[in-house]
Amino acid sequence: MMKNKWMGMVLATAVVVPCFAEPDAPYKDASLPVEQRVEDLLGRMTLEEKVAQMRIFHANKGIKSGKQGELVMSKDVVARLEYGIAGIKNPGEPDSPEQAAKLTNELQEYIIGKSRLDIPAMFVCEAYNGVDAHGSTRFMRPMNMAATWNVDLVNRIWTVTGREARLRGFHMCHSPESDIMRDPRFGRMSEAFSEDSWLTTEMVVAAVKGVQGGYDGTGVNSTHIGAVAKHFAGYGQVQGGRNFASIQISERDLIDQVFPPFKGAVQRAHAFGIMASHGDLNGVASHANPWLLTEVLRKQWGFKGYVVSDSNDIARLHDFMKVAESHEAAVEMALKAGMDVDLYSDLAYVHLTKMAKADPSLIPFIDRSVSNVLRTKFKLGLFENPYTSVGDTKMEVRSEASLALAREADLESAILLENKKNTLPLDAAKIKKVALLGPLLYTDTQDMFEQVTGDAVEYVSAKGFALTDGKRGRPALMPRDEKKIASLVEKAKAADVAVLFLGGDEYTSKEAFFSGAYGDRDLIDPVGPQDELVQRVKALGKPVVVVLKHRRTLSINVISDQADAILDCWDLSELGDLAVAEILFGKVSPSGKLPVTVPRSIGQFPFEYSQKEINYKKGYLFQKDGPLYPFGHGLSYGRFTYSKPKLSGKEMAKDGTLTVSVDVSNAGKIEAKEVVQLYVKDLIGSVTRPDKELKGFEKIELKPGETKAVAFTITPDMLMFTGLEMKPVLEAGDYEVMVGTSSADVQKAAFRLK
Amino acid sequence: MMKNKWMGMVLATAVVVPCFAEPDAPYKDASLPVEQRVEDLLGRMTLEEKVAQMRIFHANKGIKSGKQGELVMSKDVVARLEYGIAGIKNPGEPDSPEQAAKLTNELQEYIIGKSRLDIPAMFVCEAYNGVDAHGSTRFMRPMNMAATWNVDLVNRIWTVTGREARLRGFHMCHSPESDIMRDPRFGRMSEAFSEDSWLTTEMVVAAVKGVQGGYDGTGVNSTHIGAVAKHFAGYGQVQGGRNFASIQISERDLIDQVFPPFKGAVQRAHAFGIMASHGDLNGVASHANPWLLTEVLRKQWGFKGYVVSDSNDIARLHDFMKVAESHEAAVEMALKAGMDVDLYSDLAYVHLTKMAKADPSLIPFIDRSVSNVLRTKFKLGLFENPYTSVGDTKMEVRSEASLALAREADLESAILLENKKNTLPLDAAKIKKVALLGPLLYTDTQDMFEQVTGDAVEYVSAKGFALTDGKRGRPALMPRDEKKIASLVEKAKAADVAVLFLGGDEYTSKEAFFSGAYGDRDLIDPVGPQDELVQRVKALGKPVVVVLKHRRTLSINVISDQADAILDCWDLSELGDLAVAEILFGKVSPSGKLPVTVPRSIGQFPFEYSQKEINYKKGYLFQKDGPLYPFGHGLSYGRFTYSKPKLSGKEMAKDGTLTVSVDVSNAGKIEAKEVVQLYVKDLIGSVTRPDKELKGFEKIELKPGETKAVAFTITPDMLMFTGLEMKPVLEAGDYEVMVGTSSADVQKAAFRLK
Repeated sequence: MMKNKWMGMVLATAVVVPCFAEPDAPYKDASLPVEQRVEDLLGRMTLEEKVAQMRIFHANKGIKSGKQGELVMSKDVVARLEYGIAGIKNPGEPDSPEQAAKLTNELQEYIIGKSRLDIPAMFVCEAYNGVDAHGSTRFMRPMNMAATWNVDLVNRIWTVTGREARLRGFHMCHSPESDIMRDPRFGRMSEAFSEDSWLTTEMVVAAVKGVQGGYDGTGVNSTHIGAVAKHFAGYGQVQGGRNFASIQISERDLIDQVFPPFKGAVQRAHAFGIMASHGDLNGVASHANPWLLTEVLRKQWGFKGYVVSDSNDIARLHDFMKVAESHEAAVEMALKAGMDVDLYSDLAYVHLTKMAKADPSLIPFIDRSVSNVLRTKFKLGLFENPYTSVGDTKMEVRSEASLALAREADLESAILLENKKNTLPLDAAKIKKVALLGPLLYTDTQDMFEQVTGDAVEYVSAKGFALTDGKRGRPALMPRDEKKIASLVEKAKAADVAVLFLGGDEYTSKEAFFSGAYGDRDLIDPVGPQDELVQRVKALGKPVVVVLKHRRTLSINVISDQADAILDCWDLSELGDLAVAEILFGKVSPSGKLPVTVPRSIGQFPFEYSQKEINYKKGYLFQKDGPLYPFGHGLSYGRFTYSKPKLSGKEMAKDGTLTVSVDVSNAGKIEAKEVVQLYVKDLIGSVTRPDKELKGFEKIELKPGETKAVAFTITPDMLMFTGLEMKPVLEAGDYEVMVGTSSADVQKAAFRLK
Repeated sequence: MMKNKWMGMVLATAVVVPCFAEPDAPYKDASLPVEQRVEDLLGRMTLEEKVAQMRIFHANKGIKSGKQGELVMSKDVVARLEYGIAGIKNPGEPDSPEQAAKLTNELQEYIIGKSRLDIPAMFVCEAYNGVDAHGSTRFMRPMNMAATWNVDLVNRIWTVTGREARLRGFHMCHSPESDIMRDPRFGRMSEAFSEDSWLTTEMVVAAVKGVQGGYDGTGVNSTHIGAVAKHFAGYGQVQGGRNFASIQISERDLIDQVFPPFKGAVQRAHAFGIMASHGDLNGVASHANPWLLTEVLRKQWGFKGYVVSDSNDIARLHDFMKVAESHEAAVEMALKAGMDVDLYSDLAYVHLTKMAKADPSLIPFIDRSVSNVLRTKFKLGLFENPYTSVGDTKMEVRSEASLALAREADLESAILLENKKNTLPLDAAKIKKVALLGPLLYTDTQDMFEQVTGDAVEYVSAKGFALTDGKRGRPALMPRDEKKIASLVEKAKAADVAVLFLGGDEYTSKEAFFSGAYGDRDLIDPVGPQDELVQRVKALGKPVVVVLKHRRTLSINVISDQADAILDCWDLSELGDLAVAEILFGKVSPSGKLPVTVPRSIGQFPFEYSQKEINYKKGYLFQKDGPLYPFGHGLSYGRFTYSKPKLSGKEMAKDGTLTVSVDVSNAGKIEAKEVVQLYVKDLIGSVTRPDKELKGFEKIELKPGETKAVAFTITPDMLMFTGLEMKPVLEAGDYEVMVGTSSADVQKAAFRLK
């Protein structure tokens, strides 16, 4: 099946592979307990075979589809597979789903055939907004998902993602990003869910459960894939928002705020994998942190999957972090700390066989890690179901149902930040001509608007100017071009309403790579003449609607001041502008809520809403107090009224619960969804406590005139925190419970914990 | 002597005060060891008397000079003095030095007379730039002092300060600010010395030794005052640069970077007092942190003085920090943690007598605190020399010698940031007319310039516009006034050189008070039309010299780009513009060096030079990499060349030392001072290590053509840090030593620690 054409390399063939595996060895018996199978298989493996189960390499080393769709492997790849392999990243990623399925089946067949013990490989992808591979459904980004505040919806997106991934032959994804994201300077901001620990946790749990097909931790997950929650821990708070930078978070905040999404992924959603963070944590490199990778993750939380490195980070303990005197020292530090699998590296665990031969005391650590990988493979059903069905792949991937789900989610994600004088929704019956203008206009935006409004509205559209030159490594801003700006203003002049597509293009916010590519920013103002454009169009005296598209929070002071309405879309699905049109023209009421705080300037950093009360004592000179838009904010075409929250009692026992309930009514004229938010505050604590913390939310839909009761149960775990002695405490005293439509618009009730 | 006129309050008189103190009690015997005296006195005191020794109140409660210079006390004050008092803040502060001396003598006489055991009070001031009281020499601010990089000079300033304070009757000062200052948003920035731990430590030690008159910890300090190093700990890094905000610093950075100035104050300079920080530290309120106040300060460092609260912070454990359920709970937490003295509060230790009567287990903690206060009073010689000499006060305070010292220091503090095409020094023989312009011009600036240049130069001067409206609580920026700007440009047009006085006035950077006064900023760009002014004056085609005056680091991108020369003066002494004139006209070469990093924007935060190497991996999109001006930078009229650093060996033993030496030459035509800086880097450490750390510096003076050898001894303690196990470690391996003229301009040598 294999050809030796690619790059002129001579390929080994799989024709004669001796098989030493006993067909009825206990590890092949699916009816036996997984731990028994792991133990049996491990006992049969050579050191070389074990170490091979601790490495993942990238398909770009030489795996691809040939001209006739056949598997082509480089010599390098063949050599890498000599003793088997833990996994391979991204095989078939540039192929169509069915070709990818074919390719991965052939690759798996080769690997199993080559393996003395018939051990299959895991094929691994990225999947934060759908499977990151050609031909998959492109969903919204995680920050958008959190903006829906709809756990079920997010779960369904990830369920589709997991199924699409498995259908093309993947078994694991290095997703979801489970860091709380508190620094918009960081180019990866939109890959994460939220600044808030609770919201992030709910989203991560929904995502992991979805992508793992609802796997409950006991049976076999052979229809979906395994999730890898990353980056453990603190990566959302890299110093200066700079990728690869160090991280300082107090142990208390780490436990109370940073850990919960990971703990949720492990304990509630049974995540198969955890990826460590690039950075250090208060000086200790996370890839060599035994407290993090073993004490917390395994001993405290009972994690049974594997821990994988981020890219070449084991070797980088020496090369970059400079905490190991050599690559060998780095290997030993990582291995002993609990790092099971070396991603990509040809520099780290490649040394392990030789090292273990010289120092057999390493072997128990190797066995520990290999067991974690083998256990995962058994639980993924890989020994029984190593292949995917090409026919199903063709039928199911990027199906109409999946695209419909992408659209459904878009409609719930867009956040109406401003709506002065009820500028929105636009009335297609009254408005004749709409100008769709600005740098974030896509080529198919006008088409999508026309699909929504039919012949009722006439459009004129123009991108006008680009924000950046689009250079991959270090893009530059485009110089201001008066002609281009003036041309947009002219187009706006001729229309009844101007819809300006503003924000940031993909080059203004992206992952900064090791290779020299930049992606982080020091400032978060909109770049280029966007403020000027909105000012000049506004000066025409016509309604100005701004559609914001971006991948990091922007401090949109001028836009906020000038625009009549702002629909904040972050980065919706491939069909996103359909949802924009539907919302602008009132087919659907917007119901997204901010998953982050929008500040007035980067100088307000840190600005997450749930800071300690003492941080709010002083504002800044020459600046308005508070954020531009608060966490949880989002307007609606409905008009919601909240009753005062009612508590089921004034006191709560330490082993009891209380219920808080509100009646929410829609006094508006349109059916609309609303996110009812629950916040709690500990009025006095033994350590300084947050001003408020989200502890629950529910998205409801209300017809005009309809009222619904929403109730939340307050449980003791919502009130616990890490006390003076660094242990969880539940402290008697007074608490406030707040319910409302945003973190800044709540009504309060009080109770006492006895 | 006392009158009952003030505020119509009836005053108690001191005529008949019964004295129960035995004249020959051991505590009155100055020949006995201090500890024996403390024990004896403590044994004689009632609970009420003890608690009185744990309180300091402010003179604004009702102590002032009457019309005939007599002591006037309010009823309230008399009541407060019933059982004695630890100390009083700022008596005589608005008076002339000699009147203050008279007042404090009378007050002390009253207190001793009233005291059953003849216990004198400490009178306490602030003194960060000279004594903060009327008629004292106004020196430069601490940030300026650090910019001199001249330890001896700083020591002399504080020696004068300590003497001036004692002469007017003070015994203690709540200075120096010993925090490393890394956030220019914080309005108190210039009250501290530097962003760097080593430089701050050297400055703090010089300051404490100076203000304490060189007190060596064993004898009596009766000529100068005691220092209170503040704010323990981490106050320079309040979140968001907001006063009163929480503080997050990893324990490792705390020990390695934040603690050294305090440890130096205690162990090298024998500071009499420590003040705790407003904030918390990783969740634990510093005013109730037993690890900080007792374990570290007393057990690890052997501190024998007293710990004092910042303002009302003990009560604020309840009111503000919300870590105590009541004021009484706050009192107990603080007392047990090691908080000895309650500053100002009528809400905290006022409860202690009653509390201790109900719960005698508190008494040993009270005894501990009272001992710390009494010990200090004995060491200050207060029992033997409670009064000051009014005659000496008149003669010595603000003497010619003190003012000369202020000028000498100013000359060493101004930092020449830019000097394009050797614009400076100005040649008074060639330049006929100089325009002195801009919002930071003082009323006496032109006079001072004329003092320096005599008739040689003609001046025109105008402030033009103010930056702020000067409102005390929340000042506003002044609106742009084209007329005023144009008038300045006109004046510049008529001159040969324009000297622009720019930066920030006192309202743009100040302490944010609890009372509602703002002082912190979110942005650090120069406010108002200052950038515009420099651009328009520059467009005239004449040399533009910018004199920067400010109290926080400003991101002066436009000024840096436009000005031909920039002399960064921060906030010099009351005679500062004399030094400015002397430097601009080349009477003296500038020799100040930046004690902080100057960033391009607040968004680069954190930007201190000594970050971990990994923080420098990625820069920002659309922004130049690196700082605008690096730490340690400062140009000279001399032209210095450095030889390559020579090490005395290639290896260093763990109990040994190495010497690194360089030859520095002045190839210029003017005598000039230079600061030779030593940095060290640990190439591989068990925890992530800083890119470079200052470990020594020496200020030298070189005549034209002169060469001097400068040598530094590298000692093991320079290489130690807090390791993985949170203990000090000294790790074998490779190190780099760097010597040069700034943190960004060094030459390297390498050695290996065996």
